Amino acid sequence: MKSAISQATIGRLALYFRLFKSLYENGVQIISSEDLGKKLDITPVQIRKDLAIFGQFGMKGVGYFTAEMVSKIGNILGLNNHWNMAIVGVGHLGGALANYKNFEENGFKLAALFDKDIRIIGSTVHGIQISDIRNLKSVVKNRSIHIGIITVPALAAQDIANMLVDAGVKGIWNFAPTKIDVPAEIPLVNEDLAMDLSILSYHISRDRGEI
Amino acid sequence: MKSAISQATIGRLALYFRLFKSLYENGVQIISSEDLGKKLDITPVQIRKDLAIFGQFGMKGVGYFTAEMVSKIGNILGLNNHWNMAIVGVGHLGGALANYKNFEENGFKLAALFDKDIRIIGSTVHGIQISDIRNLKSVVKNRSIHIGIITVPALAAQDIANMLVDAGVKGIWNFAPTKIDVPAEIPLVNEDLAMDLSILSYHISRDRGEI
Repeated sequence: MKSAISQATIGRLALYFRLFKSLYENGVQIISSEDLGKKLDITPVQIRKDLAIFGQFGMKGVGYFTAEMVSKIGNILGLNNHWNMAIVGVGHLGGALANYKNFEENGFKLAALFDKDIRIIGSTVHGIQISDIRNLKSVVKNRSIHIGIITVPALAAQDIANMLVDAGVKGIWNFAPTKIDVPAEIPLVNEDLAMDLSILSYHISRDRGEI
Repeated sequence: MKSAISQATIGRLALYFRLFKSLYENGVQIISSEDLGKKLDITPVQIRKDLAIFGQFGMKGVGYFTAEMVSKIGNILGLNNHWNMAIVGVGHLGGALANYKNFEENGFKLAALFDKDIRIIGSTVHGIQISDIRNLKSVVKNRSIHIGIITVPALAAQDIANMLVDAGVKGIWNFAPTKIDVPAEIPLVNEDLAMDLSILSYHISRDRGEI
């Protein structure tokens, strides 16, 4: 990737974006980095450092203007663009993601589905016909797919990633529980749902008095 | 929740855990907070602050011992326990989660599935028979379910949360795209997959030179 900003920083920006948006929608016009820090449990220094990477935001001694931050962070995160997505592997998880409601609200549009199973090729999920994976390259080009979502078994994931890169996608979201390699210029996000469960297990352990 | 530690901190602990584990498995025995910070793009001060909440870790001027950290953070996060989970709503997403491989490796065991659709009640997913949602309370008790996973439509989510709490689950993981309320003593994690997409859209925007 050309940018030196890490995924951790971008993840925090997405958190800031959601909080600024919620504050704005609730009529809060301005907030200090101290109050942001309390709400998010991130140190104010970390918040100011993260935001300073992208320019001069807020007013010293006053705070950040929520309307301005929603617009500016939205621009930084590319949430004001329109993204076409393709899901490769229409099994349980692929089918679930195809039906996931929150994507379109945030500018992410499902534009193609692929599978290799002739029993489901041609059938329709969420209004999109499932294409034969052998036509991946032409469909990705014709429908201007930006983001490829990998929901195939682990053993097939690397081959699919190679096909998506070859077809010209700009980024990959990998749900297969395995490490895949892509060229440095292709952004890759690996989803690990098991990580989120550790937040629950922590709290349950505490509440049970086990630690 | 009884604990004053936020979900943001716990999320970072899960990140630390994964990195320490990977370092340990790759033969790295010790690492400084500076090097950890570089790998995770989190300030060393934030890392030391997070870990200090739970006690005295590492050796001043030397670093953190990876084996010790895997064990201690694993204990803090409750990953050395065994958790029984139930999925309520065996549609696309529920079915996908039932088949998700990474949970069992981390001590999370699927022990029950519920749905209200008589066409699928009694059928089996991932070796678990789907129970009638009307039997939720007795099944949750008999199988010692700790974690309830909500994968029903948004409009039904609050009712399901109430049923799970009433049945005695210790924590809830909500995938329905809506806000639900649970008693303060029940840990709740809301999953928002659309957030993760913003990491991709950021990098793609940068690479296209749009900002």
